[in-house]
Amino acid sequence: MAPPAHPTPAVITWLSDFGGDDAYVGIMKGVALGINPHVRFVDLAHNVPPQDVLRGALILRSALPYFPAGTVHVAVVDPGVGSTRQPLLIRTPTAFLVGPDNGVLHPAAAAAGEFSAYRIEDSRYFRTPVSQTFHGRDVFAPVAAHVSLDVPAHAFGPKVASIRSLDLPKAVAAADGVIGEVIYTDRFGNLITNIDSASLARFRGVSLSVSIGATAVAGPVTHYAAVEQGSLLAIVGSWSVLEVAVRNGSAAETLHAGPGTPVTVKVKDTGS
Amino acid sequence: MAPPAHPTPAVITWLSDFGGDDAYVGIMKGVALGINPHVRFVDLAHNVPPQDVLRGALILRSALPYFPAGTVHVAVVDPGVGSTRQPLLIRTPTAFLVGPDNGVLHPAAAAAGEFSAYRIEDSRYFRTPVSQTFHGRDVFAPVAAHVSLDVPAHAFGPKVASIRSLDLPKAVAAADGVIGEVIYTDRFGNLITNIDSASLARFRGVSLSVSIGATAVAGPVTHYAAVEQGSLLAIVGSWSVLEVAVRNGSAAETLHAGPGTPVTVKVKDTGS
Amino acid sequence: MAPPAHPTPAVITWLSDFGGDDAYVGIMKGVALGINPHVRFVDLAHNVPPQDVLRGALILRSALPYFPAGTVHVAVVDPGVGSTRQPLLIRTPTAFLVGPDNGVLHPAAAAAGEFSAYRIEDSRYFRTPVSQTFHGRDVFAPVAAHVSLDVPAHAFGPKVASIRSLDLPKAVAAADGVIGEVIYTDRFGNLITNIDSASLARFRGVSLSVSIGATAVAGPVTHYAAVEQGSLLAIVGSWSVLEVAVRNGSAAETLHAGPGTPVTVKVKDTGS
Repeated sequence: MAPPAHPTPAVITWLSDFGGDDAYVGIMKGVALGINPHVRFVDLAHNVPPQDVLRGALILRSALPYFPAGTVHVAVVDPGVGSTRQPLLIRTPTAFLVGPDNGVLHPAAAAAGEFSAYRIEDSRYFRTPVSQTFHGRDVFAPVAAHVSLDVPAHAFGPKVASIRSLDLPKAVAAADGVIGEVIYTDRFGNLITNIDSASLARFRGVSLSVSIGATAVAGPVTHYAAVEQGSLLAIVGSWSVLEVAVRNGSAAETLHAGPGTPVTVKVKDTGS
Repeated sequence: MAPPAHPTPAVITWLSDFGGDDAYVGIMKGVALGINPHVRFVDLAHNVPPQDVLRGALILRSALPYFPAGTVHVAVVDPGVGSTRQPLLIRTPTAFLVGPDNGVLHPAAAAAGEFSAYRIEDSRYFRTPVSQTFHGRDVFAPVAAHVSLDVPAHAFGPKVASIRSLDLPKAVAAADGVIGEVIYTDRFGNLITNIDSASLARFRGVSLSVSIGATAVAGPVTHYAAVEQGSLLAIVGSWSVLEVAVRNGSAAETLHAGPGTPVTVKVKDTGS
Repeated sequence: MAPPAHPTPAVITWLSDFGGDDAYVGIMKGVALGINPHVRFVDLAHNVPPQDVLRGALILRSALPYFPAGTVHVAVVDPGVGSTRQPLLIRTPTAFLVGPDNGVLHPAAAAAGEFSAYRIEDSRYFRTPVSQTFHGRDVFAPVAAHVSLDVPAHAFGPKVASIRSLDLPKAVAAADGVIGEVIYTDRFGNLITNIDSASLARFRGVSLSVSIGATAVAGPVTHYAAVEQGSLLAIVGSWSVLEVAVRNGSAAETLHAGPGTPVTVKVKDTGS
């Protein structure tokens, strides 16, 4: 059978702490296009604060479910570049992840349910000579481009038994509620917590109250417009976790809150 | 007749107040690529200040004329997400606009001369379940992708008789000039006004003076280099309206001016 | 012979001082897509400080080697737009450069070894009418798109004998070392110097010491992890020149240094 006239182009996404001032992101794309001129690119975010592996990991995990099967995700938040940390290629049932073994890939891989990880070793797939300061250009971009051309994962190096994980704070279920914390602040000042919608499901039909630090907020509500402009609210947002927000404002600024601030969900004392 | 070997790919542009810190823009693109893997993307701007519908609308209007016919423009500045504001698909003679009915689409649609607007209703074209906080991902991106695949506008929902407009300040023509104001400040500190080149055409051949607030500026000149480095000038710029600028400097900083600052064009008293 | 079913798409890269607040970059891309709907885009950087031709030139030069042969690079840092500075198309053995003749293209062209430069004159390749404030949209983008369609360089205008160059500071070789300076600060605060790896090659096997201003730093080392977290080091980095960096920190902040700060490499006095 003839191949289709217009095969679906592969997709590579890019996540880094490279910012927008330099050409580093563009250079990685140039290298990848030299290997697979048909591959499509999507930027996830490049304003990860320098070396903030945890924030990079959370962004990557948040984005993965929304990309077509087979997408190759490159994450270059790599404070250990040039040291002994190993470069990884991870295959999940629906995606490939490429980046350093410093935890940045782990939350996304773990969320995928099952995954296989390979140490990237075969220099035939590298840009050489490999610099000691920019593996994004010399290792991760060319490897991602080769993956996008259907080079199988095991071709890049041996399977590894385990990869580095991150110490993500977990919400704690109590009899009368859930105790969690803020793990991420977004551009709008929304405070994303680690209290997921599943952990709230057992309270369906029960009246709940939410507080962040010592401050009570409205909700959980189902949409921002349930409160007045400028009011605090809790909502299960687009991350499928509880967020604390200010309608058309910034909860982070209003509350001087951010990652680590405790958030509590409690069954309301109905006084009956 | 056989289809062409390489059909022209459709284009989707993206405008939002999502900034560059999070993966929200990338997530919308991932959703769109899952529906139309061949569509091309162009970012207009994502640094619209949160919830600044007017600025978003002006950026969208400024960009529309420069895209190929059939381009689908998505604008997600959406403070009312999850409320009753309706999602819209607008068809102009040369483009499609997708976004909330809060005014962000109106100036671009109105500038196109004629347009038809449709309330987006048919959830077959949505990503489900639809979140109450991110219609960009669950409604606008997938609808735009389907539009880019030539799904006709009426398939998404019923035609609506009117859409929300914005209260854009209009320049006033006087016998001896035009009185307008700054409506937009760009990255260079250029002060874009609402005095368009057409309203100045009747003064062709007549000497004019321009002032902003109480400050007289040179011009209208035909190019920046008509004044010294660091000098104030007025020029009909790339928006086809009068701008107040500083040659190789920032008029916004020099004048502490911005949207709302009055600008006056007057026929020069020649003392004859 | 039939053309291949999926010819390699041409690539245009974009570099400017347009920032991310306005639609100017998107507008250039819209114009280019109207001419060549199949061309691929890569952004190099748009946060070049307004009118900073030197920084733009250094970014362009740094990126060029990593793109496929035939890539068209557009650089719009153009304080003289609308004046008499000429628009240029430059052909190197492996790339095309498009932009104003103000020096922004010169370092990249010179680094390519040989090049031919053409004054862009033929308005058939322009978007008309040509504004006096945005040649990126009306001249450079459409010309780049036509170049990407294989219009030959000489079609755009006459060959010019010389182009404007920039006064880049050069490192000075001494008997016992090299004296150079910082020319660029990147997002991480790494201080990129003008001391290239070639000028250090003659000291291979000899112990060297590096100082920046009056401060001695470790190295040259071969990777960041050779020093403690937070320590200063010198390394031949991804630019193939000596950089002064702080491991997982910012050398620019630590040292209050930037372009112009002197950097000295010296043969170590071994006291023998």
